[in-house]
Formats: sequence, structure tokens, C-alpha cells
Amino acid sequence: MFNQRRLTHRLAIGFLISLAAGPASAVPGDDGAPILPETSDGLIPVRVAGPFEFPWSIGFLPDGLFLVTEKPGRLRLVRPGSRPREIMGLPAIRTGDQGGLLDVAVDPDFTRTGTVYLSYTHGTQDASTVRILKARLELKTRRLLDQAVLFESDPPASANEQLGGRLALTSDGFLFLSLGDRWEPQRAQDLSDHAGSIIRIRTDGSVPDTNPFVAVPGAKPEIWSYGHRNPQGLVGDDRTGALWATEHGPQGGDELNLIQPGRNYGWPLVSHGLNYDGSPVGSGIAVAPEIEGPAYVWVPSIAPSGLTMLRDGEQASIVSGALAGQMVVRLSIAGNSVIAEQRLLEGILGRVRDVRLGPDGSLYAITDDPEGHLYRLLPATEQARRASGRPPL
Amino acid sequence: MFNQRRLTHRLAIGFLISLAAGPASAVPGDDGAPILPETSDGLIPVRVAGPFEFPWSIGFLPDGLFLVTEKPGRLRLVRPGSRPREIMGLPAIRTGDQGGLLDVAVDPDFTRTGTVYLSYTHGTQDASTVRILKARLELKTRRLLDQAVLFESDPPASANEQLGGRLALTSDGFLFLSLGDRWEPQRAQDLSDHAGSIIRIRTDGSVPDTNPFVAVPGAKPEIWSYGHRNPQGLVGDDRTGALWATEHGPQGGDELNLIQPGRNYGWPLVSHGLNYDGSPVGSGIAVAPEIEGPAYVWVPSIAPSGLTMLRDGEQASIVSGALAGQMVVRLSIAGNSVIAEQRLLEGILGRVRDVRLGPDGSLYAITDDPEGHLYRLLPATEQARRASGRPPL
Repeated sequence: MFNQRRLTHRLAIGFLISLAAGPASAVPGDDGAPILPETSDGLIPVRVAGPFEFPWSIGFLPDGLFLVTEKPGRLRLVRPGSRPREIMGLPAIRTGDQGGLLDVAVDPDFTRTGTVYLSYTHGTQDASTVRILKARLELKTRRLLDQAVLFESDPPASANEQLGGRLALTSDGFLFLSLGDRWEPQRAQDLSDHAGSIIRIRTDGSVPDTNPFVAVPGAKPEIWSYGHRNPQGLVGDDRTGALWATEHGPQGGDELNLIQPGRNYGWPLVSHGLNYDGSPVGSGIAVAPEIEGPAYVWVPSIAPSGLTMLRDGEQASIVSGALAGQMVVRLSIAGNSVIAEQRLLEGILGRVRDVRLGPDGSLYAITDDPEGHLYRLLPATEQARRASGRPPL
Repeated sequence: MFNQRRLTHRLAIGFLISLAAGPASAVPGDDGAPILPETSDGLIPVRVAGPFEFPWSIGFLPDGLFLVTEKPGRLRLVRPGSRPREIMGLPAIRTGDQGGLLDVAVDPDFTRTGTVYLSYTHGTQDASTVRILKARLELKTRRLLDQAVLFESDPPASANEQLGGRLALTSDGFLFLSLGDRWEPQRAQDLSDHAGSIIRIRTDGSVPDTNPFVAVPGAKPEIWSYGHRNPQGLVGDDRTGALWATEHGPQGGDELNLIQPGRNYGWPLVSHGLNYDGSPVGSGIAVAPEIEGPAYVWVPSIAPSGLTMLRDGEQASIVSGALAGQMVVRLSIAGNSVIAEQRLLEGILGRVRDVRLGPDGSLYAITDDPEGHLYRLLPATEQARRASGRPPL
């Protein structure tokens, strides 16, 4: 169902081999970047391109090209080994605070259609919204053509923060967008308000009549699930049809949720976290009837960012970037339960804003920094070790 | 169902408050031990008693007394503030390697009965078994009286290792014992062999006719579950009746399992781990039909030891010691799924052999060392902070 790439066997094996292989060393980046510090978890980060100014998301184009969004409102076309080029013709973007150009999703049929989807903040200092733009990217001229706004969150908010903003595109033509509570928690429980929800539309901008609240008077018909605080990770499992989301909780309450239509994920009524002054959140309780509980909670917070999905046979994993946690987190899944957490590259790359599985079967990560970089995360296989010029261990 | 103490609200709150309270400092131990290094996770370890020679388990007696087993074959009676005294009249114990005196379980009705249960290795250099002894502990004379061997594993094994050895006593008169594979993995799949299983008997030594294999010709009737490698953690949830066990997997395959009668936990057919040479275990697969999968896996290994259970209202947690991991691990449970892992006191205490919830609502831990100690793990509440002489944060 979902537009996710198949995991090559190599990657899964790499994760396992890493356990036995001992310390791994970074290899020089494709752009000749300096060698990174040694890591002990078998992932070798190779710098692919950079610097980018506060990059937010990675998109994969045919022929080994990448798109990288920069939060201050630029979209970059990346050909490894060359300087990233700017895509022209972007819409008016309200930048500042946590807002700006956020996510990019690439049509799986891009070669034929050229279609990309962008999420970004729009509006003024005092009233901003989150929009989804659909456009045709002409690679030759590096321009966005045939632009259409598919969705705009309503009502606007004054805080350009707690935006959510992550897209998930399914192969059967649905587009999901995560939306934060804009620092107005009660909005997440209000079905007449997009804030604090995950919405679903079609890629033509229409609202599916199978959405859970289309028949509820006053409810926003695009809402798929609600009660979210600041969801910034969103990924579908093409095998099972499951939709997974992460959200920034209050202190100690970051969540992984299995998103089901019409369900209430509890914010701000129920949370595993505390406010920053140490007082309990909402009712101070962590479970309640009629509220969908999280599949996993991070205590203390790691600030989960972009999310991707790995599969090797029956074994599935969800991989998340972490901003405050400065790492890549791999959660092994059995059924809909997390059965293992691995923390990878802790403190090596800095704040990880997005992590994605590429069409080549490699993981890619991008770092949240005034000079952020795009990295390929190679498993420490014999092949990678040979490329590093080091003898086998 | 299970003989587990109720969690006081104070402890659960302490875990949460710790997230907001910032670094906590150790306070002097009840025996005047020096202040321990600062920790940042809100648990303050206070030394209660020691040193013990390779202590293995903690038992709680009335009136604030403790029992501590020492692997070289001694049982200690501990009154905080006094020198631990030796209990006399222990049975013949085969010590050496991983063997010796292992676990102790105290009858919840100890005041009336004086009954304790001990697990230990018995036999010779070349043929050892794991036994359960039932005895009456006379506190006045510090002697074990009225001794009876309730169970002995069969057949013997030459390696005095991978023993399991953890007891779990239920309030309705059942006694569980975990047994390792003795470095002969195929024995864990053999129902005519106790090795690699968890067994269940009554506290009078009889075999319940509700055990799953009582009617299977050739099978050991005591077997409750099988396919275990080296289970060293075992705890029951008195609220739900669930029985949880941890086991040492091969490299990277430590498991938490929800133990159900008659089920096969897969060792050595299925594992999430690798052998120490890096080759995959058994079939090299992590899931298979007819095999009960783990509820949680540690990759890489932490070497889980003693296990205890916390409850605060609907929120349940399983807390494990870790030997190689040198910490206390708290897993939050929702239903039968793990929804969070917290790693506490990492590197502070050393190798943690056992962790138990005491009748006072505090966690207690004991360290695996030639000079191991018994610690009380205080939450960093205002009260504890005042005791440390530090100003409120």
C-alpha cells in the first residue's frame, strides 16, 4: 500500500553483522568529507552532500538524485559529488521559529509525472497555516510548475511552532500529513480544528468519503486521527498497511503510535510525560478508556524526527531520527509491538532531522544544523570495510 | 496470585519526578558507606549491607530483616546496621563455575511457618543437578531445620554453567524454577529433560495435574515451558497472573518472555541473536510458527539477572538487573507489550545480580562481585533529597 522501498537483505544482515564486527570506522564521504569519528555499532556514516541550512527532509529521485528541503524555504536538488542546486519557483513560505519548508514526498511514478508534494508554513507573523503543495518538478530547468495547494490547515495559529508537518504518500493515492497542536493543547481534542491531528486526502486534494469524520457535523473531514501533540515522524508499512507516527511529547512522553482511523491519541488528556515544570500532564494519568495508548514511549525524551521502515522477511523495524537524542533509533516490531530498541550512532552525527530508506537499500540521514549534511549509513559489511581501506577484523 | 508486594505510590511518582529533578546525589548508606557517584536518573543507591561474596539473591523477612544468598554456598541473615550473620545447617552444595547457592524465596506466611525455599547446585565435578530445598529457618538459632528436597533436575550435566536457578513463589502454593540448557542446547527441546525449561511444582513438592505435559509419555511432568537457554529472571504479576522470565541469549539475543504453559520458547531453533563467532543461531531465523516469540529483546546483550514487578494503578513495570550491562532496566508494560525501556544507574553499581521490590515499597539491588553489596534504591523525592543534605532544586 505505502510508497516504501523494499529492504535489501544486505542492510538487515549488516545490522546483525555489526554486532559481531567490533568497532567500525567512518570512510571518506562521496564528496571527500573528512573521516568521521569511530562508532561501535556497525553503521558507517558517509557524507553524501552538504552543507544545507537547517535541512528538514530527504526525497529520492530517479538516477541517484536527491531532493533536500531547507527549513528557511529552499528546495535543493542533489547530485552526489556536485554542489547542491536550488529549485526555483517555490510558493510564498512563512519562515521563522519552527516553520518554513518542511517535508517533501516524491511520486513513485515521478519519471512519468514529475510530481512532488511539499509541506510548508504559510501566512503572516500572527496567523500561519500548514499547506500541502502539489507541483511538477522540471529537472532540466529546476523549476516547480503546475502548482496547486491541495490542503491548508484551519484555523490559523499565532505560534509558528509545534507544527508537525510530515507527509506520507501511499501507492494507492492517499496523502497523509501530521499536524501539531501549535502550543494550544486543547485544539488537539477539537474535531473542528486541524491542529493536533493526522489528516488524509487524495493526491488530487479531494477528501476520501471513507475518512472517519466526513459525516460528523462540524468536524474537519480531512481528520484521520486526533489527540496528537507534535507528530514529526510518519511512515507506512507497505506490507501490512499499518501507519506509524512518532510525536514529541512533553518531557519524557515522546510516543510511537500505530495510527488507526478515527482514534483519539489522548493529548492533552492523557500522557506518559510531564510538563517542563515537572507537573503531570492533563489528568496526570497515562492510560484511559477510549484513548489509544502508545506502542512505545521514550523516557526521557529523544525528540523523534523522520521515520522510515525496514523489512527483512518477517522481521520489520521502524527507524527514527532523534534531535535531542542525537542518534538513529531502530525499533524491532513483532505484530504491532516493539520488541527491541537499538540506539545507533549516538552523538556521532548531531541532531538527526530525517532518516529514510533509499531505493538502493541504504539508510540516509540528514542533520538539523545551520550547516547540516546528508549522510548514507552503510552497514559495516566486508564490502564497506574494504572501501575504507581497513583490513578485515 | 503471585507473592509480589504492592507498589507504593511514592515509588512510581519518584520515577517520574526523577525526570524533572535533575542530577541526584547518593546519600551515606545505613552502614555509613561512602557517598556513591552522582547519577542523573533520580535513583539514589543507599548501601544497606555488605560485603557479600558473590551474592545471588535477596529475600525479605519480617521486621526489616533480609536474607542474602552467596554463590559459594552461604546464606546470610542481614539486619541493617549490623554485620551479616551466617545461617547454619545448609545442605551439601556443589560450588564452582556458575554453580552454588542461587536463589531464596520466603514464604509470605513466614512469621507463622518459618519456611524458605533455596535453589542450588548439587552433585559432583562431572554430574551436577539443580535442586530446590524447603526448610524451616529458625531465626533464634540461625539454623535451617526440617529440610526436604522438593525437586532435582534430571538428568545431571557435566558443565556447572547455564544453570538458570531463579525461583518464583505464588501465593496460591505454586513454585516455579528456571533451568538453563547447561551448554547443551538441544536439551532445551527435549521434554524428557529438565534442562532449558521452566518447571512448576507445589510447595509440598508434588506435581500439579494441571501441568501441560503430565499426560505426555516420557515427558518430565514438572515442565511448564521449554526452549529456554539460560533464564535467570522470573517474576509473577499478582494482578494479572502473568509469569515473566528473562534469559541470557547468545550475543545480542537476551529475551524477556511471557511464560505460558506448554509453550516452546524456541532455543536453539530460533533466536534473535548470534553465536559469539558471529554466525547465526540455529536456523538463523528470528520467528517461526509454533514458537513463542519474545516480548522484548536486548541487542546487544545486557545479561539480565533478577527480575521484579512494579505496579501503580494500571501502569505496570518490569524491573531487571543487568550483569554485563551494569545497570537496572525498567520496562513499562501495557497489556503484554513493552512500551518503554529506561536504563537506570548505568555503570554506578557494577554488575547487578538481583533486584527486588521490598515490603517497604523500595527497590533493592545486589551486586555480583567478590565483595558485593546490598543497596536500597531510593527515588529522588524531596524527602530523600533532604536526607542528602542538598537544597531543593
